[in-house]
Amino acid sequence: MATLSVRKLRMEIQRLRLPVGVEGTYGCIRHPGASLAVPLLPDGRVVILRQYRFAVQRRILEFPAGTLEPGEPPQAAMERELQEEAGYRASRWDDLGLLLPCPGYSDEVIHLFMARELEPLPAPVQGDHDEDIEVLTLSPAELDRRLASGEEPLDGKTVTAWFRARQLLQLG
Amino acid sequence: MATLSVRKLRMEIQRLRLPVGVEGTYGCIRHPGASLAVPLLPDGRVVILRQYRFAVQRRILEFPAGTLEPGEPPQAAMERELQEEAGYRASRWDDLGLLLPCPGYSDEVIHLFMARELEPLPAPVQGDHDEDIEVLTLSPAELDRRLASGEEPLDGKTVTAWFRARQLLQLG
Repeated sequence: MATLSVRKLRMEIQRLRLPVGVEGTYGCIRHPGASLAVPLLPDGRVVILRQYRFAVQRRILEFPAGTLEPGEPPQAAMERELQEEAGYRASRWDDLGLLLPCPGYSDEVIHLFMARELEPLPAPVQGDHDEDIEVLTLSPAELDRRLASGEEPLDGKTVTAWFRARQLLQLG
Repeated sequence: MATLSVRKLRMEIQRLRLPVGVEGTYGCIRHPGASLAVPLLPDGRVVILRQYRFAVQRRILEFPAGTLEPGEPPQAAMERELQEEAGYRASRWDDLGLLLPCPGYSDEVIHLFMARELEPLPAPVQGDHDEDIEVLTLSPAELDRRLASGEEPLDGKTVTAWFRARQLLQLG
């Protein structure tokens, strides 16, 4: 098996026999998993980030999220990331399901949450030194409008989590 | 730069200087891009696939989609995939935007479409020999219910495209 690894990512190339009976050489990314939260303020606005992503060389609109540390429970990871990336602590958490961002070539699973009863932290918490993040707050209608505008590339994990959050909040 | 390639995927590891000023070693998947369609039948049901994905070792619920061939326009690629994977031809196409499935570590862009005025093909078209696909039709309410149930892992491209399709169809 050929492999290439960097940080928390590993690419593996291997011979596989699929359930349909075909054998072939396939590549797959092994990823430790991640968590994401839709943070909802008491007035109904969501907290969302404008974040630079080198892989696509632009700033995109994303809910706070982060890769799991080895053995870290997904909600605990998200409590940490919500403080580091957005500057909030939440005391009410709902499960929004499991997301597969790229099931064609990655085993990554993202645990989706809604985070409510938010409190801003008194002082910023140190996160990853290479993050480049602006924190925004948007009403649900404004977020819907931006996603419909065609001006924003659609981040799959963000739109999927927002779809599930709208279901939970019965926004229609 | 270290690289590893298989089929249409290449992983690259390189030193980068980010706009925020930090320099580091980062890994990224280079992908040729893809197309996806939400196929809508005249009676309002959607056509959706139950497809085996070796990377996550399970069958997931996905709209028809496929990787672009070199130089292939996204809508033409999708017209081909809709025939191969689902057995339909569509004569009305709407653009639903550009999706980034994994902007943290992949440059893949998926072109989202809605496909309407569907006609079943008189005979099946030969697709990839290793695809393992069942074609389903679901009402919008049934698809919403399945995505809310917690029984289905959520395919990011599928839920994002469905969110945009619901906006276009003004389903609420």
